This record gives sequence, structure tokens and C-alpha cells, in this order.
Amino acid sequence: MKYLRNRWYVAGWASELTAEAPLLGRTILDEPIVFFRNGPGIGALRDQCPHRFAPLRLGSVTEGILQCPYHGLAFGADGECVRNPQGPVPKAARVRAYPACEAHSMLWVWMGAAEMADPARIPDFSCIGAAPATVRTPGYSRVDAHYELLNDNLMDLSHVDFLHRSTFSQGSLSAVRPQVSVQGEAIRILWNVLDAEPSVINKPHIGDVKRIDIDTEVVWHAAGNMRLSITMRPTGGASGPALLIQGCHMMTPESATSTHYFHCGTRNFAVDDLAMTAQRAKIARRAFDEEDKPMIEAVQRSMGADTDLLGCHPMLLGGDGGAVRVRRALKEMLAAEEMLRLS
Amino acid sequence: MKYLRNRWYVAGWASELTAEAPLLGRTILDEPIVFFRNGPGIGALRDQCPHRFAPLRLGSVTEGILQCPYHGLAFGADGECVRNPQGPVPKAARVRAYPACEAHSMLWVWMGAAEMADPARIPDFSCIGAAPATVRTPGYSRVDAHYELLNDNLMDLSHVDFLHRSTFSQGSLSAVRPQVSVQGEAIRILWNVLDAEPSVINKPHIGDVKRIDIDTEVVWHAAGNMRLSITMRPTGGASGPALLIQGCHMMTPESATSTHYFHCGTRNFAVDDLAMTAQRAKIARRAFDEEDKPMIEAVQRSMGADTDLLGCHPMLLGGDGGAVRVRRALKEMLAAEEMLRLS
Amino acid sequence: MKYLRNRWYVAGWASELTAEAPLLGRTILDEPIVFFRNGPGIGALRDQCPHRFAPLRLGSVTEGILQCPYHGLAFGADGECVRNPQGPVPKAARVRAYPACEAHSMLWVWMGAAEMADPARIPDFSCIGAAPATVRTPGYSRVDAHYELLNDNLMDLSHVDFLHRSTFSQGSLSAVRPQVSVQGEAIRILWNVLDAEPSVINKPHIGDVKRIDIDTEVVWHAAGNMRLSITMRPTGGASGPALLIQGCHMMTPESATSTHYFHCGTRNFAVDDLAMTAQRAKIARRAFDEEDKPMIEAVQRSMGADTDLLGCHPMLLGGDGGAVRVRRALKEMLAAEEMLRLS
Repeated sequence: MKYLRNRWYVAGWASELTAEAPLLGRTILDEPIVFFRNGPGIGALRDQCPHRFAPLRLGSVTEGILQCPYHGLAFGADGECVRNPQGPVPKAARVRAYPACEAHSMLWVWMGAAEMADPARIPDFSCIGAAPATVRTPGYSRVDAHYELLNDNLMDLSHVDFLHRSTFSQGSLSAVRPQVSVQGEAIRILWNVLDAEPSVINKPHIGDVKRIDIDTEVVWHAAGNMRLSITMRPTGGASGPALLIQGCHMMTPESATSTHYFHCGTRNFAVDDLAMTAQRAKIARRAFDEEDKPMIEAVQRSMGADTDLLGCHPMLLGGDGGAVRVRRALKEMLAAEEMLRLS
Repeated sequence: MKYLRNRWYVAGWASELTAEAPLLGRTILDEPIVFFRNGPGIGALRDQCPHRFAPLRLGSVTEGILQCPYHGLAFGADGECVRNPQGPVPKAARVRAYPACEAHSMLWVWMGAAEMADPARIPDFSCIGAAPATVRTPGYSRVDAHYELLNDNLMDLSHVDFLHRSTFSQGSLSAVRPQVSVQGEAIRILWNVLDAEPSVINKPHIGDVKRIDIDTEVVWHAAGNMRLSITMRPTGGASGPALLIQGCHMMTPESATSTHYFHCGTRNFAVDDLAMTAQRAKIARRAFDEEDKPMIEAVQRSMGADTDLLGCHPMLLGGDGGAVRVRRALKEMLAAEEMLRLS
Repeated sequence: MKYLRNRWYVAGWASELTAEAPLLGRTILDEPIVFFRNGPGIGALRDQCPHRFAPLRLGSVTEGILQCPYHGLAFGADGECVRNPQGPVPKAARVRAYPACEAHSMLWVWMGAAEMADPARIPDFSCIGAAPATVRTPGYSRVDAHYELLNDNLMDLSHVDFLHRSTFSQGSLSAVRPQVSVQGEAIRILWNVLDAEPSVINKPHIGDVKRIDIDTEVVWHAAGNMRLSITMRPTGGASGPALLIQGCHMMTPESATSTHYFHCGTRNFAVDDLAMTAQRAKIARRAFDEEDKPMIEAVQRSMGADTDLLGCHPMLLGGDGGAVRVRRALKEMLAAEEMLRLS
């Protein structure tokens, strides 16, 4: 499949690289990659020894040097072979290295031309990275579907009223026509719900009010990184203090029909309430794993081997505006990359 | 694959649609279909919302109106969209509807031209539908094989002597040359076994006799619906009262290499003996699931991706006459449908 | 895939054919075969009845006659049909028979031209067949990889130092340049390790010495039959008594990407120590199933559908000399067979 290459993709949580498990193997855009710490940096090598194609993720790492588990060749984070137990290091002995770094408590990898890999282009997900651990709810699921179906899912939150009826729907988003806008390379969609009843779970934290206004905003960054912000204020008190619940959702293609889905929620209230954090994590996990994931995977199966939803001629509704905008932006970015490659 | 389309297929037991589980999703001739009750009738819709291809079987149904689980579109049993939560119903919003009905305690679906769907063409399986519940032994298995291999299995009951040696063989069918005859569109095969010993299980019900004559008859209706009748009489008493054991066997293609197999037995004796009914159900289930099914699936694997047994050049025996007759009839019916379609 | 056909392949352990399980079905070079005893000989028939392609391995065998489980045709070990329950035996009723025999406690099958099947061409693995049962450690694993990757694994034992670090490595083979030599149709590779420390497990049996010399020899016979001999002597005592540990490793292709791996170890010391035998069997099983097998299968997955390692352009090292020699010999033997077939 053709992927957008000159972008940063989330490869994992920084917390996945530990002293006990210093090597993380993950397939990104169909390429098997092994991640490990190299001092303050992150090493990312093709997960395949050039000798006999052994998976390097099963090897061992010592001070940034990764040793192959099969016959012992050792490689630095730049991909060069630095040791051959059978004799001198062969000249051609190297493995592909990918630019990688840690940011906002995640591991990021650049899948395109190395000279273009600028960490400044990583989307600002400091809402996650800077949030206290007591409110963060990180999660991961592997989904058997093309990543754009996960983009679609978040760009049309009207599904919450039906799919998440039993978890966190407030039954109001499908009745609102959202506003879509472009912000540089990002695309933003916003639902304004006025004069709503606070949900049972949020009510105790919003003060002595009966009705609230809710802004639900999703901002998408290519290829599949999104921030979802829910702002709740007493109805009419637009400028007053607000409850803010945020979540980052990172969709990284594993293959044409499978996606790594990383997600993490935070909030600006009850920041020391660990029981609430645990409850919110549980609800998010249940909503995704038992409601979104089976639905998105069923949609993919329904589309068969096809990975281009628009090519399957869906009957689009008003609420699809944001999702279609994102799909068009991706097509344009892919075409631009193709032109750059040919020029 | 090419299927016979202008025929009724069994899609399920009527008892599968309940208040607790009002939606039944099943793939028939490669098409995913969702079944539900619509008053006294049966709704059968393509199990795929035209909006984003969500499986409708995961939705909800209220008074014959089926609502999509993903974004809430609602459809009637005729396939027309009747509600769009996001605004007016789009003109093109509909999903394919299939003629369907309930008969003989089964759900039937018509997979061809709707205007030809006449319930009078459903084979007369009243032996099942009209039998008291106390003697009925309904069952279902999904088989990984082309449905014609299941047709073959019942059209050559000589296999009973070998495959079912440990369950219900009387060791006599393979020695008898069966008679094959055509009855309109149906094909009938008959084994006459004279002067046999009654089996232990049937003996107590046949009166004070030592030897019996057994007629074993299978009548096939296209594409894969068969009635098997075993009539047992005291030897020489051809016109006297008889034990009659009947079974209906409905083979519905799921795909080229998988089949829904529905079966149900009845009998005309010991009609209140629930223990006997339970025992007969258990024996039938064991014989099929542990003997026929593994064998038929092994034969399919042996044939590989091929689904046409005759194309694999089997070495045919005398007992294959009925099965070959059925295969030829199916080929002629398929050709006739093709001509109808082109005319 | 193209296989070397005019060779003996190991199909199983002789002990796999028992009174309780007289039929052994196994796929060899993509062909399903059923094995059974026929007096002192071994019957090997294509595991597919010519009538309706039922697997004969599910049938029954009586005095060398195999009866089909589906409709009862019966075949002799020569493949000829000897009984048809429905009437006379059809003239064309036969199933392919393969030359087969028992040798060195294994079942062998010849996959090529029957007239060339000379048991004298079975490699001399009497070290296994003649060894007392008290020292034998037979095992079997099915591996999802092309059989030549298993050949490679044993032809480059430098992997022991890395992959088997936690089981039986002595950390010395990767530093030694092995000698490769040709012995008729066989290929031999030898590692001489001088002045080494005996391992904890062998030390008590080698006498009152501190240092030993170790010869590690692998002899390969096409297509994938190997004998591994480890000889340990007190350093400098080249002609004195020695500890000898031997193992036979038989790799039989099941398909292009799966292999039957049979292995058995013996030793010439502590021959009555059953506890040591059990311990050695356990270590061998663990080393293979938890270390070699996952690695070899990962290498195959890494190569994708490709089964020719050299075609994937590995970066070869000095230690690959033996493995490459074996791969070249196999290519030449295949070409010679092809020429023989065309002449």
C-alpha cells in the first residue's frame, strides 16, 4: 500500500521500553522495526539482521549496541555493524536506521526521507505529555482495519449516540451539525451542544448548575493523530471556568488492513482522584474494545480487501463532512509526496 | 461461485428469532443477510448499511424497523430508509430486501428474482412442521465443504455401513442396489432391504416379530433440501402398520466451500417418549458431527479449492447413481437459469 | 515446489505405528500419505481414496489390507483395490503406493521412481538404531519453515554460542573456523576446539582432567539427514578413550514452508543412567522448541513466501561455508534429477 511517509508516526508508549524489556518490535507501515534506548535518544532499526534475516527484537542491547540473537552480529543505533564474532566486520554490514525520538511520553518514528525528519513537526500533544500521571489513561489496541476507518470514526462523533449508548453517550451529538475548519495542515471539527444536562459522572465537578454547554472539538494531524477536547461550562457562562476532558488518539498503520491505536485521556479536575482515573480508563477501554473496535473491524470485513472507503461508494450523510475532508487532505498529501519523489 | 438463485433456501430455524435475540445474521450464497420478524412476516435485508457498511445484525429492531448500530439510520422490511438522525432521509437510502417467510418451522429466503418468489414452491416438509414437538430433533452444523458434497452423502447411504458403523448402521445398505427415479423436479432414491433383523433401538416398537423389511427413501429438491424416510414392516406384511422414521436435511450454501446444514428427525411411534427423542437427537448429532462432518470436510480439503467433484475425476461406483443424477440435474437447472437471465 | 525425489525421507518413528494406532497419516513433499504395517514391511499409500477422495488414514487395517472409512473399498499395500462392497472391483481401482521400509528405528519412504528405491541408499544411522534404549532421546517437532533453513542451522553451529547461551553453549564454536569436506555424496563440517573447559554436565564422566579437546562434526546426507558427533578427550590425549555424544537430525519437507523435524541423541557413557537420559532429552527439546524453532520460523516469516535463502541476498559470513556448500549440492542434485527425467 502507499503510505504517507514524510510524517512522524507513534510507534509506542515511552514506558514500553524498560530495563526488563529493552527491545520493542513493532511493524509500522508494513516494515518490521525494533526500538531501543540509546542514551537519551531512541534507536530504531529494521528488525531483520542482514546476515540471515533473524529478528533483532529477540536479541540483546548493551549501551545502545544491539546484538543479533542468532549468530551474534552487533549494530549501533545508526545501523552500522560494529562487531562480528566470526572475524572482521564485513564492509556492507549495516541495517536500515529510522529517525526516532521520544516526545509527549510517546515513541515517534519518521518513515520517510531521513533528512526531512524534524522533531518540530511532531504535533503538540503536550496535553498528554505534561499532564500529571494521576489523570492519564494510556491504552493500546491493535485493530484489524485500515487506519482511515479509525480517522473517520473520530471525525464523526455522531456515532457516540448509537454505538456508545451504554457507555458515555449523552444522546445529543447526532442532532447537531458540526463545523469543519482548516488550521494549517490540521483539520478541526467542532460540535456545540447548548443547554444540555450534565452526565452523572461529570455533574459533581461542574458546580451547582442544572444545565451546561458542551464544546466537543477534534483536531486531526496527518496521517492519523488526533486530539479530542470536551469543554463543559454552565449554560450561558461562556467565559467562566470550565471542565476540560482531553484525549489524544494516535492511529499508526501496521499494514493496509491493520492499525496500531494508541490513546490517552486527561482532565483538568479531580486531579488527585485515582479512583476516577481508573474508572475513566476502564470506560474508555470498554467503549473502544467492545464497541468501536468490533464495529470498525466489521466495516473493514464488509469492504473486503478494499481499503478505500470512498471507492466502495458509501451513501454519505451530513455528518460525514469532517471525515471526507480528512480523506481528501490525505489524498492531496500523498500526491504531493509522489511529486516530490519524482522531482 | 454460480449458485441456483430462483429457489428457496433454508436460512434458519424459526425458533432462532426470539425476543432476546431478534436479529439473526447469516451469510447465504456469499451474501450477508440479517433476518428479523415483521409482524407475522419475516424481514430479510442485506446485512450492510449503505452509509458506512456497518453490519445491521448488530443493530436493534422495533416493530419491524431495523436501526443501524453505528450512526442510527433506520430501515423497514422493504429495505427503504425511514429515519436519519442527522436530518432528512436521503432519496437513495435503501438496502436490498429479500423475499422471506416462515414455513414448516423454518425460515426460508429466496435468492433470485423477487417477482418469482412463490411460497408454494417451498418443498413440502410438513412432516417436520406438523410433527409434535415431542418427537422433533432439530439441529444445525456449519460444514467447511461445498453443499453438493452433503447432497452426495445422503444420496449414497451405503456409507452408513462404514462411516456410521458405531452409531446407527444395520450393515445392509451397501449390499443393495438402490432404485433412482425422477418425480417432477425432485429425484428419489430407494433402498429395499428384505428380511433384516430389527435394530436394538427399534425392536421394542415393531411388535412380536423377528424379521423386518426396510424401505429407505431419500427425496431431493433443488438445491439441497432432502427428506429421508425409513419405513419398517414385519417381513411379508407390506400393507400392515409400519414404523416410520423421517428426517429433513436442508443444505444451504454459505460460500463455495462452506454450508449451513439444518436437520430434523421425527417418528410415528412412542410419540410421548421424551427420553427416546433426546437419545435419537444425541445419536444424530454424534453421527453427523463426529462422523459425516469430519469426513466431508476432509474430502473437500482433499479436493483443494476445487468445488466440482466430477471435475476431479473420481472413480465412480454403482452406488453413485443417485448422487450423479442430482449433480446433473443441478447443472441443467443452472444452465436454464442462465438462459432465462440472458433472454 | 521442486523437491529432490529419488531419495529416502524419514516419515516417522517406527514406534508411531502401534496396535492402538495402526495408521499414520503424514504429508511428505506436499503429498498426503498413509503408513501401516504389512507383515514385516511397511505399506505407504496415497492418503486419498480414488472413489470420493476420503482420507484413508481414518480407515481400518487388517492383515495389511486397508479399508476406506467412507464407502468401504479395500486396498493392499501395493495399492490395488481388493474389495468393493457394492459389487465387482473396478479395473482402474488403485491408489498410488510408495516404496517404504523400517530402518534404524525409523520409517523411511522413497518419493521418486519406484525402481530406484534401494534401501542400501538409506544413510547409516545405526548409531541410533543400534543404541540401547536407555540412552536414546527421540523427538519430533513440526516447523513452519523450509527444510533448508533447518539444514543451515546445523551446518553453522556458531549459532550455539548465541541462541543456546542458556542451554548448552560452551561459548567456543563461533571463534573457530570450521573445515568443510566432501565425502562422496555427503558433506562434512568439523570444528576443532582445543584446550577447553569441560561443561558441568559432562565433567564427571571425562576422568580427572581439567582441560579437554572437543571435535564437533556434522555429516549431511541429501536431502536433510544429518549426524552430529561430539567427541571429547583430555587435552593432548588424541588417541585415548573419548566421550562420544551423537545425534541424528532428520529434516523431511512437509511443504515448501513446513518441515517434519525428527531428532534423536545417544551417548557412549553412563549408559544405564536413565535420569541423565531424561535430562538430556529435556534439554534438547527445550533448546529446539524454545530457541531454534522460533528463530527458524521467524527467519522464514522474514523471508516471506520466498523459500530460497540465497535468492534473498543474505550478507554471508565465514561460518556460512558449510551451509552454502550443502545448498549448492542440493541445487546440483535437483538439476541432475531434472536431466534424468528429461532423458
